[in-house]
Amino acid sequence: MNVLRDDGPAALEWAASYLERVGDLPVLAQVEPGAIRAALPAAAPEHGEPFSAVLRDLEEVLLAGVTHWQHPRYFGYFATSSSQPAILAELLAATLNSVAILWRTAPAATELEGVVLDWTAQLLGLPPGWHGHIEDSASTSTLAAIIVAREATGRDLVVCSEQAHSSVEKAARMLGMRLRKVPCDPEFRMRPDLLGDLREAAVVVATVGTTATTSVDPVGAIADACAGAGAWLHVDAAYAGAAMVCGEHRWAFDGVARADSLVVNAHKWMLTPMDCSLLWTRRPADFRAAFSLVPEYLRTPDAEDALSLSEYGPALGRRFRALKLWAVLRCHGRSGLQEHIRSGVRLAERFESWVAAEPGWELCAPRPFSVVCFRVAGSDERNRELLDRVNAAGEIFISHAVLNGRYVLRLAVGQMSTTEASVELAWEVLRNAAA
Amino acid sequence: MNVLRDDGPAALEWAASYLERVGDLPVLAQVEPGAIRAALPAAAPEHGEPFSAVLRDLEEVLLAGVTHWQHPRYFGYFATSSSQPAILAELLAATLNSVAILWRTAPAATELEGVVLDWTAQLLGLPPGWHGHIEDSASTSTLAAIIVAREATGRDLVVCSEQAHSSVEKAARMLGMRLRKVPCDPEFRMRPDLLGDLREAAVVVATVGTTATTSVDPVGAIADACAGAGAWLHVDAAYAGAAMVCGEHRWAFDGVARADSLVVNAHKWMLTPMDCSLLWTRRPADFRAAFSLVPEYLRTPDAEDALSLSEYGPALGRRFRALKLWAVLRCHGRSGLQEHIRSGVRLAERFESWVAAEPGWELCAPRPFSVVCFRVAGSDERNRELLDRVNAAGEIFISHAVLNGRYVLRLAVGQMSTTEASVELAWEVLRNAAA
Repeated sequence: MNVLRDDGPAALEWAASYLERVGDLPVLAQVEPGAIRAALPAAAPEHGEPFSAVLRDLEEVLLAGVTHWQHPRYFGYFATSSSQPAILAELLAATLNSVAILWRTAPAATELEGVVLDWTAQLLGLPPGWHGHIEDSASTSTLAAIIVAREATGRDLVVCSEQAHSSVEKAARMLGMRLRKVPCDPEFRMRPDLLGDLREAAVVVATVGTTATTSVDPVGAIADACAGAGAWLHVDAAYAGAAMVCGEHRWAFDGVARADSLVVNAHKWMLTPMDCSLLWTRRPADFRAAFSLVPEYLRTPDAEDALSLSEYGPALGRRFRALKLWAVLRCHGRSGLQEHIRSGVRLAERFESWVAAEPGWELCAPRPFSVVCFRVAGSDERNRELLDRVNAAGEIFISHAVLNGRYVLRLAVGQMSTTEASVELAWEVLRNAAA
Repeated sequence: MNVLRDDGPAALEWAASYLERVGDLPVLAQVEPGAIRAALPAAAPEHGEPFSAVLRDLEEVLLAGVTHWQHPRYFGYFATSSSQPAILAELLAATLNSVAILWRTAPAATELEGVVLDWTAQLLGLPPGWHGHIEDSASTSTLAAIIVAREATGRDLVVCSEQAHSSVEKAARMLGMRLRKVPCDPEFRMRPDLLGDLREAAVVVATVGTTATTSVDPVGAIADACAGAGAWLHVDAAYAGAAMVCGEHRWAFDGVARADSLVVNAHKWMLTPMDCSLLWTRRPADFRAAFSLVPEYLRTPDAEDALSLSEYGPALGRRFRALKLWAVLRCHGRSGLQEHIRSGVRLAERFESWVAAEPGWELCAPRPFSVVCFRVAGSDERNRELLDRVNAAGEIFISHAVLNGRYVLRLAVGQMSTTEASVELAWEVLRNAAA
């Protein structure tokens, strides 16, 4: 069968038209748990079906169960945007099906990964010479960094702020390490004066752009404390790191040059579809010491000259994720990425100004980037009910956070297709629902 | 820009024609380390370029650095095969860009993952009711299983055979756990009588289809020992698990029904491109206990009814990997998968028979599936040189193993496009090179 030639055009048409019509669909999937499963057969078919049947069921069965992350009014969690060059690159990566277990099994995938990580490091203003590679998610990147930190320091305490991402606590639990959560100041930034004794700390995880409010920890002061105590400094900039492509946001990376490792997700605010988490280190030898384990059957004549990225992270098998990031960087360029970041920040700023000006509504945290935390006057219950109501209606999708014990609403801008009209509609929907 | 409509047809044409001509390219990339990097610019462009420039550079710059896993004469490691329905599914998954952090953020992706894991469990003859989800690689699946085993047993010893995959040792190292390697019998199977005292063992990892020779550990006897000592039993069937779709190979899964967890890679012998590692467990509550950590901002009204797969593995962010496996199961059907497995086994059997009949050559291990271990008479050096010579020439690609201290050659069949002519050519190339 020649599925690419026979069915490829229809798949491509489905993809192109999906992106054209997604704004007309309800953002949040309007299905009950179990409904999609119930609509599918209980067993795989005995004989192969045409690909057109898959495409038909994608449209007729699965689509109702899709929450549309590509919708212009998807404002939940960190709104992320795929982009079309990256979508085609994923087709090409699956065609090549390179498996980068070693340099020689995938020289192009291995070297392109180094190249696009270097390009991105420059775009974000990182110091020259850092070593970068790609993991599937920030959870894995942070887990990897903590593993290296434990190996490098021989210590078993992980330190982060009470606003750090749950992946830090999850990593500590997976690794059987202790965790210390440091209190934050009133603007949700880690208080370096409350770090405590770091002489037992393997690693301090500082966050540039925390999950709830996108607050920025004082990385410089934390770096001082780490240096004094010999602790590893890992910076989680999974969301906000992408903003460093714009000079006006670089203040948020003050001190990051002194980090031992850094994670930025290209699949959040950098126009790349899941999964593409960028992990840099200025201590590649420590990464290699923690992860390199080359069994006999993987030893090759070129092992000494050629870098195998599986020696720098947990997984042996690695797919060609660099190809989509390459397509993004080439087709959008520095200026295109800057425009995307600035558009998101500008729209969030507009939304913030409307909330600030409206009686009965309040802002709940500073807004350094493209996420606004706000609430309507009244109880937590009123805000929770408001959120459930607008999300169920499907015109917009937002998420929430709890700050200082209060339930707050959270609007995150990040979709390439989001316009001023999208944000205006969100505000109208929220005000109407609250009225 | 409408890249999908404007450039999609050219990308599709590149993909289709690549698969048609890949058999004419040298299997192993014929580049020196650093050559691909040197051919690429030192920085990302300032302004976006057309996608056609990416496609041009893929052809003119990157292609020379691709080791062609899709080549009909790729016989290295575990030969893996993508297939065209899965390639199109990856395009669609990147278009939807679902991020399955919670059920409600991706109901279709979450439920389809459950469905295709159930379908595959049936195809492989697993007991009903096992819980399955997808990880990126067997390294991650095994790491996850060991984390759960440690949590469930409160013990810190990992036990596997000396023929187990390196990911087991790597996981133990990452987790700071102790490792015991159990000797094998002359046919490279773990010796259950040498398991030793398992009362300190968190987990025993048994292998169905070891990496070097595809030998099958006696899972039933190992399960007895685990049950007696309260140790977790994890089965690594990353490669050979796919063969269970054929009744004649089911002997190799004897005892697997008693495992606590099992990994089978769909991206090895099941026509699915990287990455799609299937991880099942009959103890989902233990997985959830080890990995569930739902922070406030991820709590949703449907959390109690709807399964979120991020609670069953290390990563929070998860892409829509189930879509490609669904396309594979639908478009190939049970019979198509059986045909693929049987073809691989038959071709390996042919190759094995030629080696057996040829004076001056010897077989070095039993061949239960599609991998043949063999060598030419003479020193390790002679065999090593032979391998380097044939791989450098580019007509075929094979890898090696060390068995009982001797260097042996290894031919693995798994590509969908591999035919009897491909295997005949491999044998001819090897004999000529040795002569």
